Amino acid sequence: MGGEIKSEVIRPFLESTINVLKTMAFLEAKPGKPFVKEENEPRGDVTGIIGMASDTVSGSMALVFSEATILQIVSGMLCEEFKEVDSDVLDCVGELTNMISGGARAGLSKLDMKFEMAIPTMIRGAGHNVEHKTKGSIVIIPFEIPAGTFYIEAAFSE
Amino acid sequence: MGGEIKSEVIRPFLESTINVLKTMAFLEAKPGKPFVKEENEPRGDVTGIIGMASDTVSGSMALVFSEATILQIVSGMLCEEFKEVDSDVLDCVGELTNMISGGARAGLSKLDMKFEMAIPTMIRGAGHNVEHKTKGSIVIIPFEIPAGTFYIEAAFSE
Repeated sequence: MGGEIKSEVIRPFLESTINVLKTMAFLEAKPGKPFVKEENEPRGDVTGIIGMASDTVSGSMALVFSEATILQIVSGMLCEEFKEVDSDVLDCVGELTNMISGGARAGLSKLDMKFEMAIPTMIRGAGHNVEHKTKGSIVIIPFEIPAGTFYIEAAFSE
Repeated sequence: MGGEIKSEVIRPFLESTINVLKTMAFLEAKPGKPFVKEENEPRGDVTGIIGMASDTVSGSMALVFSEATILQIVSGMLCEEFKEVDSDVLDCVGELTNMISGGARAGLSKLDMKFEMAIPTMIRGAGHNVEHKTKGSIVIIPFEIPAGTFYIEAAFSE
């Protein structure tokens, strides 16, 4: 599963997530220690995926939520309590995916990693696995909010 | 869910899928009538997703398989009977996603739609839904193989 991802590449994802959760959902997301994906962990109930492409390096980012975490986030975003994952919630997952990847993209561009962004795809289904097709490394950053842990996965081509 | 997708944009996906299934898995995939995605159909057990990005238009493509269809395709690709979705199968899903989107990309470039490709993400989980975050339209092409029906979903930004 490839080599190391430098911390300077992880930071834009980390900062963007904290910033988006704070400004959009009024939640403090506490980042845990980033780790390199080994096996097919973690599982999610709702996932947002976006592709990042350039003519040199490509990547993908996934936001992996449990039902509890995404409901808390969307309830904060829309100022209304959501109790089940419906189409409004999925739409917010797409929006979060756009905003977090957009913030990360801005940070990555300062490292001379300039990407064009694809459009988000959202997955709903209890306990699904997410994998990335790359020989490069895949880094996972866990974030704690009161409802539990959610994850960002970032993968890049070699 | 947005306007019409022109048949000339659908054709590269259709031709690439037929071609890849034939050459890689020795399977004849019979295309059904493409339709515009309305609700959250169809559900899949295994999905391959790839983002397509440029500085003007962006998109995403999903290959949505039932367990039966992907096992038949991978058994054809690897000349060995696969009875469950394991990491080899998921790796093949990523490979199929790369090859089919790559063929479609070549066809789209002739229409002056030039994309850079992200890296594939694969989802495993019984009966999950796939959605795309776009105000543009989402087209689905069904394909029949002996084991059943699988689907390509292509979504573009407006």
